[in-house]
Amino acid sequence: MTTVDREHVPAAARRIAGHVLRTPVIEVSPGLWLKLELLQHTGSFKVRGAFNRMLSAGELPGSGVIAASGGNHGLAVAFAARALGVRAEIFVPEVTSPVKVAGLRALGAHITQTGAIYSDAADAAAKRAAETGALVVHAYDQAEVVAGQGTTGLELVEQTGGVDTVLVAVGGGGFAAGITLGTAAATSAGSGPAGAAASAGSGPAGAAGAGGPKIVCVEPERIPTLHAALQAGEPVQVEVDGVAADALGASKIGRLAFEVLSGPRVESVLVTDEAIVSARRTLWERHRLAAEHAGAAAYAALLSGVYRPVPGERVAVVVCGSNTDPATLTTG
Amino acid sequence: MTTVDREHVPAAARRIAGHVLRTPVIEVSPGLWLKLELLQHTGSFKVRGAFNRMLSAGELPGSGVIAASGGNHGLAVAFAARALGVRAEIFVPEVTSPVKVAGLRALGAHITQTGAIYSDAADAAAKRAAETGALVVHAYDQAEVVAGQGTTGLELVEQTGGVDTVLVAVGGGGFAAGITLGTAAATSAGSGPAGAAASAGSGPAGAAGAGGPKIVCVEPERIPTLHAALQAGEPVQVEVDGVAADALGASKIGRLAFEVLSGPRVESVLVTDEAIVSARRTLWERHRLAAEHAGAAAYAALLSGVYRPVPGERVAVVVCGSNTDPATLTTG
Repeated sequence: MTTVDREHVPAAARRIAGHVLRTPVIEVSPGLWLKLELLQHTGSFKVRGAFNRMLSAGELPGSGVIAASGGNHGLAVAFAARALGVRAEIFVPEVTSPVKVAGLRALGAHITQTGAIYSDAADAAAKRAAETGALVVHAYDQAEVVAGQGTTGLELVEQTGGVDTVLVAVGGGGFAAGITLGTAAATSAGSGPAGAAASAGSGPAGAAGAGGPKIVCVEPERIPTLHAALQAGEPVQVEVDGVAADALGASKIGRLAFEVLSGPRVESVLVTDEAIVSARRTLWERHRLAAEHAGAAAYAALLSGVYRPVPGERVAVVVCGSNTDPATLTTG
Repeated sequence: MTTVDREHVPAAARRIAGHVLRTPVIEVSPGLWLKLELLQHTGSFKVRGAFNRMLSAGELPGSGVIAASGGNHGLAVAFAARALGVRAEIFVPEVTSPVKVAGLRALGAHITQTGAIYSDAADAAAKRAAETGALVVHAYDQAEVVAGQGTTGLELVEQTGGVDTVLVAVGGGGFAAGITLGTAAATSAGSGPAGAAASAGSGPAGAAGAGGPKIVCVEPERIPTLHAALQAGEPVQVEVDGVAADALGASKIGRLAFEVLSGPRVESVLVTDEAIVSARRTLWERHRLAAEHAGAAAYAALLSGVYRPVPGERVAVVVCGSNTDPATLTTG
C-alpha cells in the first residue's frame, strides 16, 4: 500500500496482538493521562510498526529484513526479526552510541556501522537491500509502519474512554500520523472493540466526537521537520540538532506523515531543549518514569505552557521512549 | 481497630480513591503480570496505608501526624499530610540518605534526624507523639495501614481478571498481609466491583476460587523476618543487612502481619542479594522499570527459580518501590 488510512490501524492491531505490549496509561491528575509507551518492548513504540510491516509481508525472504536506524528503530526491527525467526541486517551510522550497538548485537542482528550520519547509513542499506532482496523496514515512511505505530492511539482511546487532545512527539512523523489515524479509527462508529470507548469518549470539549481528538504534534525547536513543512506547504529539509537528536533525528518529515499531519485535527508546536530536559527530570522525580529526551518532548509542551488545555479538557500525553542512560536522569 | 480483616480493604479503597494512583499492570508474557506499584505517588505503595490511616481518624489533631521511617514510609506520610493540609513530623535515623531527607524537606515535613538506626528514631517519635498528641502513622503494624496497602491486591485481581499466585516482598509485612486480605476480598463473592473479576478469575490451577490466590512472601536471606517468625511460631528479632536493608529494614515482622501471614494461602521463600541485584537489572534492561532493590525482590524469586510456577499458572509480581539512584540501575 502506498497510502495509509484509518482502517489500516485496527487491522494492524489484530496482526501484532501478542507480539507487542498493550502499554498502560496512568491518570496522573483528573483528566490528564500519560500513555506509557516507554515501557514497550525495546523501550519505544517502534516495535509496533516493525511487526506490522513484517507480518503484512506474507512469507519473508530468506535474506530476512533490513533497516537503517540511529537506534530505536533498529532495536525494534532486530527484536521483531528474532521473534519471527528471520535474519535482521541493521545499518547504523558511526555516531550511534556503543550502548545501542551492543543492544543490537544482543538481539542477534547483523550490524553494519557505516557513514557519518543516518542518511549515509540509509543509502548503504538501500543499496544492500537491492542486492539481497531483504524486506526493507523503513523507520517512518511506510504505510504498514505508520499503521502499526497508530495502534498506540487505538489503545489510548480504549484505555481512557476517549480524550479531547493527544500530545505526541514528532521526528519523521510516523508515530504522530499513526496516532492521528488510530484515534480516529477508535472514535468512529463500528470499529470493533473501540466502538464502546468512542461512545463514552465525548469529553467536556466534545472534540472526541468529531472525528477523533486534536493531535498536538510536539517538536524540538532545533528539529522542526513538521513545523517547517507546514509553513512551506511540503516536506523540506531541516537542520538536526539538540538533546533529542538521537531519536528525533529525521531531517525531513515523511511523505505519508505529511499527508496525514497537514490535515484537520492537527496542531504543531515547538519546545525548547531546556523544556525537554526539565520535563524529563519531572517524569523521573514525580512519576518515576525513565524517559529519553525525545520521549519527554510531548510532556514538555504541557509543562512549559506551550500547550495550555482549557478547563475540563481531557488530555493524553504519549511518553514514547526510554533508551537512555539512567545515570543522566537526575543530572541532565 | 486492633485486628484487620478482608472487609477492611474495600472500605480502604473507597476511602483513598482519588488520593492514590490506581497503578497499572503489564502482562509481560502470557500469564505473567507485573503490578507497577513503583509508579505510585512518592515511589512506593506506602501512600495507600498512610492515607487510609489519616482518613480513618476523623478530624486530625492540630499537632498533625507523626511517623518514624528509614525513608519510603516517611515520604508517604509527608505526601499525604501535605495533601490533607496537616502538619507532618518525621523521625529518621542518622543513616537515612541525604536524598530521602531532601525529599522529605521538599514535601514540607518537619524532620528530626536522631539515633543511629530506625528503632532509635521510632523510640524518639513515640516519646514525641505522647507529648504532642499527633496521630501516629506506623510503617506497618496498624490495621488501617495494612488495609490501605491491601488495596494493591484488590486492584491486581480486578486488573488481571484473577491470578493463581502473587509474589510480594516482605519487610515488616504490612504490604504482604494487606495483599493477602485484599486479594481474598476481591475474590470472594459480593465484594462489589471485584465480584466480576472473581468470577473470571479461576485460572488453570483454580486457586483463585478457593479464597484467593496463593501469596508467595519473598524476603532477602539477610533479613528473614517472616521466615524466622514462621519457624519460631512467633515474631522474633533478626539481623538487618544486605542490599535491600534501606526499605526492608524492619527487624521483626509486625504482629498484625504475622497473624495474617501465618495463615493459609501463604508461602515464605528467601532470595539472595545477588538474585535481587540481577532482577533489578533485568527490570531495567527488559522492562525499563527503575526499581529499588527491595522493589525487585519479589521478581528475583521468579527469575532465580526459587519460586517455579507450574505450566499455565497465572502469576502476578508486585514491583513495589522506585526510590533509588537511577545511576546505579546499570552498575549494581
